[in-house]
Amino acid sequence: MFRPEIKVLDCTIRDGGLMNNWQFSDEFVRDVFNALCDAGIDYMEIGYKSSEKAFSRKENGPWKFCDEESLKRIVGDRKGNIKLSAMADIGRIEPDDILPKEQSLLDMIRVACYINQVDKAIWLAEHCMDKGYEATINLMAVSTVLERDLDEALSDLAKSKVKVVYLVDSFGSMYCEQIEYLARKYRSNLPDKTIGIHAHNNMQLAFSNTITAIIENCNFLDATLLGIGRGAGNCPLELLMSFLKNPKFKIRPILQVIEKHLIPMQKQIPWGYYIPYMLAGAKNQHPRVSMKWVESDKRDNIVEFYDMMLDTLDV
Amino acid sequence: MFRPEIKVLDCTIRDGGLMNNWQFSDEFVRDVFNALCDAGIDYMEIGYKSSEKAFSRKENGPWKFCDEESLKRIVGDRKGNIKLSAMADIGRIEPDDILPKEQSLLDMIRVACYINQVDKAIWLAEHCMDKGYEATINLMAVSTVLERDLDEALSDLAKSKVKVVYLVDSFGSMYCEQIEYLARKYRSNLPDKTIGIHAHNNMQLAFSNTITAIIENCNFLDATLLGIGRGAGNCPLELLMSFLKNPKFKIRPILQVIEKHLIPMQKQIPWGYYIPYMLAGAKNQHPRVSMKWVESDKRDNIVEFYDMMLDTLDV
Repeated sequence: MFRPEIKVLDCTIRDGGLMNNWQFSDEFVRDVFNALCDAGIDYMEIGYKSSEKAFSRKENGPWKFCDEESLKRIVGDRKGNIKLSAMADIGRIEPDDILPKEQSLLDMIRVACYINQVDKAIWLAEHCMDKGYEATINLMAVSTVLERDLDEALSDLAKSKVKVVYLVDSFGSMYCEQIEYLARKYRSNLPDKTIGIHAHNNMQLAFSNTITAIIENCNFLDATLLGIGRGAGNCPLELLMSFLKNPKFKIRPILQVIEKHLIPMQKQIPWGYYIPYMLAGAKNQHPRVSMKWVESDKRDNIVEFYDMMLDTLDV
Repeated sequence: MFRPEIKVLDCTIRDGGLMNNWQFSDEFVRDVFNALCDAGIDYMEIGYKSSEKAFSRKENGPWKFCDEESLKRIVGDRKGNIKLSAMADIGRIEPDDILPKEQSLLDMIRVACYINQVDKAIWLAEHCMDKGYEATINLMAVSTVLERDLDEALSDLAKSKVKVVYLVDSFGSMYCEQIEYLARKYRSNLPDKTIGIHAHNNMQLAFSNTITAIIENCNFLDATLLGIGRGAGNCPLELLMSFLKNPKFKIRPILQVIEKHLIPMQKQIPWGYYIPYMLAGAKNQHPRVSMKWVESDKRDNIVEFYDMMLDTLDV
C-alpha cells in the first residue's frame, strides 16, 4: 500500500522556530533528531541557513544560522540514517554562506521564494547543487498569485536543474479543490520534477491537503511534531505517519518526543487551530495580524477581531 | 457557487451534551438557538428524545429528553426560521414517547442505529414520519461493518419511506478515500434518498471529510460550534460556513456565541485533537478508552497509552 518514492521531511525545528526565534535547547533539538532517526523519517529540516549579516545572534538562536559547529553538537557521530536540510530565504543569504558539501553536515538546501524571486531562487538552488547539495525550490504564497505569472514561473522552473519544487499553502487558505488543481498544474508543467507539499493548518486542512497532494502524486511531504508551527501550525507528523503505510516507519519514538517536549511546550507557546487563524485562512491573508492578536490580551475577543479584519483588511 | 439543496444541521447541544450529560444552562442553549437562527442555519439538533424509563433525570440534563416544556423555555415565540431536531437511539425510546407533530416543537427525528438494528430503525423512522415529522436514519460505526452486511442494510433502506440516510464516521477513522467510496455507494444504492454526513475529528479530518462528502453530493451536513463534541469533537460549524458560499449565512452571530460560551467552556471541559483520540481513530476503535485516559491524571502519558492500546486492544 505504500509508495516507496514518498519522502517525509520533518520541519519541527525550522518552522517551529518561527514561534520562538529558534531558541530551542540543544537537548530538545537532539531529542527531536534522535526520534526522527529512530522513526525512519527521511529528512530533518533543522533550521534556516542565513547570513550572519542579515540577522542578529542576540535575537535568534543557532537554528536561524545552522553553522557546522551547532550541527555537530546535535548530530554527534550518528549521521547517516537521516538527511539534514536547511532552508534559505532569498535575500537573506550570500552565495558564500553555502560551504562546499564536503565541509557540511547538511544534505539539502531548500530555497524559499516569492513569485517575483523565482529567477534568483533558481540561481541559488543551482549554486547549491553545484556545491554538491540536493536542492528544492519552495514557491510561497501562490494563493495570491495571478495564474499567468505562476505559469511563467513554472516554465522557468521546468528549464532549471532543480529536481524538487514545492507547492506551498502559505496562508492555510486552500481547500482540497485548490490543492488538486495546483498539484495537477505543477505536475503537468514540471513533468521531470518531483513535487512537494507544505501545508498550514488554519482551517484544519493541513493533513487532509497533504493527503490530497499524495493522491495527486506529490512525493515530498512536510510535517512537524504535533503540528508545531507559527499560528495554526503545520501538518502533524504523527497523523501523516498513520496515513502512510511505509513499514520502515515507527510511531513510538515520535510519541516519546511529543510526550517529553511538545506537549509541555504547547502549554508555554500555544499553537494550533484558533478562530483568528481560521479567519485569516478563509480570507487568504497572511497570519501576521492574527498572530499579533492571539499573543495580545485580546486573544479571546474574536468578534472584535472579525470586525477589525472587515474594516482594515477590506476583505 | 453554493448548492441550494445543502442543509446544515448544528448538533452542538446533542453531540456536545455527550461530554456533560446535557447539563447545559438554559442561557447557553437559548444563546446557541438564537445564534443559529441569526446565522441562517437550517436545523438545530437540540438533544436526544429518550424514554424517561431508560435514563435518570438526576444524572442527565433536560436535553437528554427534549420534553415540550423544555423546548418551549428555549424557543419562546421565535420558532419558524430554523427547524428543530432530536436524535433517538434504538432501544432507548418507546414509540409512544413520540408525540404527534402538532403537539411538538420538534420538526425532525433522527434515528441512530447500528447495522443490526436497521429494521428497527426503519420502523421507528417511519413511525415518526406517520406522526408528521421529517426523519433520517443515521447508520453508526460503518467503519467496522462487513460490506455485504452494509449492502443488505442499504437495500432495506432503499425500500423504506425514509428520505435521508446519514453516512456516519463514528470513530473518526476514515480518510477521504473511504468517505468518497462510501458516499458513492450510498448514493448509488439509495438513488432516491438524500445522503448526509456526520464526521468526527480524531484525525483532524472532520471538516475535510465533510468537504469530500459535499463534493460527492451529500446534502445534509452536521457540524458543531468550535467543533464541540465527545473526545476530538466534530466538524466545526464556523469552518463549514466558510466553505459553503450560501449568501444567507452570517458568520458574526456564530463568532459571538463561540466567544461568549464555547471558548470559556473549552477551558473547563476540553475537547479537540489529542494523541489518544488520534490513535483510536487511526486504529478504528471506539474512543471510550481514549476518553477515560484523557480524563484521568495520565492524560499526557501518551506513550503508556500507546503501549496499553497495543497490549489490550490487540491492534
